[in-house]
Amino acid sequence: MAADFYNDSLNARCSIPPLVNRKAKSGPTKVSAGGISFGGDEIVIIAGPCAVENHEQLSETAGIVKAGGASMLRGGAFKPRSSPYNFQGLGQEGILMLKEISRIHAIPFVTEVMDTRQVEFVAQHADMLQIGSRNMQNYPLLKEAGMSRKPILLKRGMMATIEEFLLAAEYILSQGNDQVILCERGIRTFEPTIRNTLDLNAVPMLKHMSHLPVIVDPSHGTGHSWMVPTMARAAVAAGADGLIMEVHYKPGEALCDGYQSLDPDDFRQLMTSLRKVAEATGRKIL
Amino acid sequence: MAADFYNDSLNARCSIPPLVNRKAKSGPTKVSAGGISFGGDEIVIIAGPCAVENHEQLSETAGIVKAGGASMLRGGAFKPRSSPYNFQGLGQEGILMLKEISRIHAIPFVTEVMDTRQVEFVAQHADMLQIGSRNMQNYPLLKEAGMSRKPILLKRGMMATIEEFLLAAEYILSQGNDQVILCERGIRTFEPTIRNTLDLNAVPMLKHMSHLPVIVDPSHGTGHSWMVPTMARAAVAAGADGLIMEVHYKPGEALCDGYQSLDPDDFRQLMTSLRKVAEATGRKIL
Amino acid sequence: MAADFYNDSLNARCSIPPLVNRKAKSGPTKVSAGGISFGGDEIVIIAGPCAVENHEQLSETAGIVKAGGASMLRGGAFKPRSSPYNFQGLGQEGILMLKEISRIHAIPFVTEVMDTRQVEFVAQHADMLQIGSRNMQNYPLLKEAGMSRKPILLKRGMMATIEEFLLAAEYILSQGNDQVILCERGIRTFEPTIRNTLDLNAVPMLKHMSHLPVIVDPSHGTGHSWMVPTMARAAVAAGADGLIMEVHYKPGEALCDGYQSLDPDDFRQLMTSLRKVAEATGRKIL
Amino acid sequence: MAADFYNDSLNARCSIPPLVNRKAKSGPTKVSAGGISFGGDEIVIIAGPCAVENHEQLSETAGIVKAGGASMLRGGAFKPRSSPYNFQGLGQEGILMLKEISRIHAIPFVTEVMDTRQVEFVAQHADMLQIGSRNMQNYPLLKEAGMSRKPILLKRGMMATIEEFLLAAEYILSQGNDQVILCERGIRTFEPTIRNTLDLNAVPMLKHMSHLPVIVDPSHGTGHSWMVPTMARAAVAAGADGLIMEVHYKPGEALCDGYQSLDPDDFRQLMTSLRKVAEATGRKIL
Repeated sequence: MAADFYNDSLNARCSIPPLVNRKAKSGPTKVSAGGISFGGDEIVIIAGPCAVENHEQLSETAGIVKAGGASMLRGGAFKPRSSPYNFQGLGQEGILMLKEISRIHAIPFVTEVMDTRQVEFVAQHADMLQIGSRNMQNYPLLKEAGMSRKPILLKRGMMATIEEFLLAAEYILSQGNDQVILCERGIRTFEPTIRNTLDLNAVPMLKHMSHLPVIVDPSHGTGHSWMVPTMARAAVAAGADGLIMEVHYKPGEALCDGYQSLDPDDFRQLMTSLRKVAEATGRKIL
Repeated sequence: MAADFYNDSLNARCSIPPLVNRKAKSGPTKVSAGGISFGGDEIVIIAGPCAVENHEQLSETAGIVKAGGASMLRGGAFKPRSSPYNFQGLGQEGILMLKEISRIHAIPFVTEVMDTRQVEFVAQHADMLQIGSRNMQNYPLLKEAGMSRKPILLKRGMMATIEEFLLAAEYILSQGNDQVILCERGIRTFEPTIRNTLDLNAVPMLKHMSHLPVIVDPSHGTGHSWMVPTMARAAVAAGADGLIMEVHYKPGEALCDGYQSLDPDDFRQLMTSLRKVAEATGRKIL
Repeated sequence: MAADFYNDSLNARCSIPPLVNRKAKSGPTKVSAGGISFGGDEIVIIAGPCAVENHEQLSETAGIVKAGGASMLRGGAFKPRSSPYNFQGLGQEGILMLKEISRIHAIPFVTEVMDTRQVEFVAQHADMLQIGSRNMQNYPLLKEAGMSRKPILLKRGMMATIEEFLLAAEYILSQGNDQVILCERGIRTFEPTIRNTLDLNAVPMLKHMSHLPVIVDPSHGTGHSWMVPTMARAAVAAGADGLIMEVHYKPGEALCDGYQSLDPDDFRQLMTSLRKVAEATGRKIL
Repeated sequence: MAADFYNDSLNARCSIPPLVNRKAKSGPTKVSAGGISFGGDEIVIIAGPCAVENHEQLSETAGIVKAGGASMLRGGAFKPRSSPYNFQGLGQEGILMLKEISRIHAIPFVTEVMDTRQVEFVAQHADMLQIGSRNMQNYPLLKEAGMSRKPILLKRGMMATIEEFLLAAEYILSQGNDQVILCERGIRTFEPTIRNTLDLNAVPMLKHMSHLPVIVDPSHGTGHSWMVPTMARAAVAAGADGLIMEVHYKPGEALCDGYQSLDPDDFRQLMTSLRKVAEATGRKIL
């Protein structure tokens, strides 16, 4: 079925699973989360801290991103950390804090689930569930997320091919849940100067193959706060349906990922320039 | 010397060679080739066929890219081909054909050198010499190119780190020639659906480290003509000082790389959209 | 702490977590599973089918590998498959079948767990739990496995660095369980002719850094049954403490991974040659 | 033509060029250099310093490797160095020093050529020409080497697929020169703890596809002298027809690659253990 897409290429090597395939639908899928729609003409900005640390940090940051033009709040309560000795997140307490502050600032939120046993609780409170890169091929978690009937933000594994990424999304759709957003967040390459190599090629490729919305995470995709604005603009020019970015009210004091988090001023300036690039490509920022 | 650039990063692992280092100069280097200036506010478009095939093909294509808005013509006469049984290029005859057609259409040209023994001849005729990806660490060729005093378009090796890329440029500068343009053209990753993974992160990273102009090749960087316009726009949004793209008057009949070459209509439409993205980022197309 | 290991290298970039660090113990850790000891002078062979398919297949294959010289049986009941439409394994029924046939043939068995909710059941029946490549950074699963007090066979993620692999093992040890075997099974590279690139460098590197036993999976590490014997011998020469290999009584009929499974004759011949290589390096096959 | 080799694989993606193809000949090609034969039952050891530094260093090291059991001397006079500020080699003076010391110690030598203009001179003096990793796709150099009629040691590019490696060899054979030895020397991956990832899978794969001899360089393939003996033994068990290793009479004083060079004692001990592994696989060290 993919063959006709690739007759222009010597290197075509991918088969597209049936439910995520662009040809399975007459047009793009719209994903609705907390009243926000992904996959239409409007580009959605998700912003917030890497991890929920405490009430002040989350509330201040939520206010900043809402005022700056973000439509959705991000923040981790269950944190997958490479080392067992790093801060592991506030767990259920963090989820409830997200819910409270989300309601105060009138901004819906997305947060990560790492374990099948967390899905039911998080699905009760969050507007969208995130499945992170390290769990992109955690099949029991994908199935549980599919059964939850919540919208799912699925991040590409740092070592996943486009085909494997689409197969992971297919696991969710095969449970009867088509509310899936694909998120490019950087792949692992040989290059040591950046944390991950943000692969913007994935944006046109995924939209070519699938009807699902595609967003980009330039914070994890570069690992340098000073690169985030440039790569965010490039992502919009590449056709992304949204961006998810780390913003912290005091990046220098963040418990995780401070070096890749935007400060409030950077975020406001970025939003201004993003609007111009969006318009230049015939779209607008939500 | 690089340390102060990277205090925001856990993954900083690069030392910047002295002559290419941004701190070695008070501002960006302008490279002038055939009267065209790279590295200023204006973005330069280089376009043309993969290989010089014959007079009609080159002349027709040169006319199309000039009319469409390109400022420089590209075309290979000495071709590095993976297989000894593929078309190897027209050699010196191709160089002379490039020169003739360049003069007729009043558009300067860049062409590749592969061998130290070719440098003198090509330098007599071309406006800029290209050193291709496979020769990025061909040190005798880099030195010879440096001694030629011609402007050099240096392409990143398909598996070269940013540091290695800058060290290759340093070989040219260390011969007393600072007229070097760096070109990102896609790196090799595990992803099979594209020929190379265009690494747009390299644009802000190289400009952060070095004073040299940086351009992007979305044709080799993706290997799919249908992806070229999208990635060309993303490259401009990422801050590229120019683009080099494959255009062929009849892509279906091209002797090499036809599947990644734009046809005349695609090229014209792309130029229109590029101008909008350039303006949205405060620049313009030359 | 790692610094003294790497003063001979320009590329040293790794910190070793404290509990897995070789310096944390006076000698190598012995891991005991079903009466079999890993990490001593004797090299342990684990063999069996990719997946448990039915009673005949498992029983026949178990008899063949036991007779051929394997000390432990492998077989998957919970199968992580890239596509939701592939055979997903027999689940709990498969675990019970493994237990029954393991007892009949007097050979202990190892089998994979994919979900925290499976750990308790599988730990009741299996002699060792396997955590697969795709779950190497599934931290809730690592913690649950650590708490189970069963020996754990931890496979390296297909794109995990040595440091990340050791950090994943540290998650298990930090729960008070030091019965962990590290398994190299191939990493993802740019090379398309093999399924994964078996990285035998990991064997001396892991043993240099850690006190844990290291085994090798040449079946997944190459994806070609004809390469398995050669790479199995190379793994033993590289100092592996064991091998885990796919053997099927009828590879042509296997429901998964038949193209990388040894047939009974290949397995018997391999065992003979492995004994010679083990002796040449001062060890023997258990 | 390759299809029948790969019917056991889901991942077969390679076509084998005609002249290097194993099917082009009735048996393996023997390459003879300075009276030494590669590609038969006997495994050939090549050893010596990274670079020729001075008469004492080369003469002492040549004596040590000859006495220890090496059959051929290695040493670089034209050195491809990543930085223009590193030691670039002694050039023609180094070639003549190699020739003199080679004759004194009655051991033939191999040395690198980097530039088409060096081939004639080096071919007059050396027993075998080496084309290094960075020049694997330097096609003019491959053709010039092919026309020289000298035996060629061709190293795999650090980013080259097996298919590209065979195509590079095909360039030499297509000039009428079949005296080519293929050398695996490590590929570039994401793993930072080693300089390159020695890919021993390439040994059986290349011998499966081609009739040319295959040798292994565990010095560049790991970048750590302490890993060289282990990986050398693994290479022999993997079926290598030879090894090329860096040995220096005083590694701590080497002008390049000292951290990956064996000292005289390590080399002698390694030779003893290599003989045992060779015998275990039915071969012997020359």
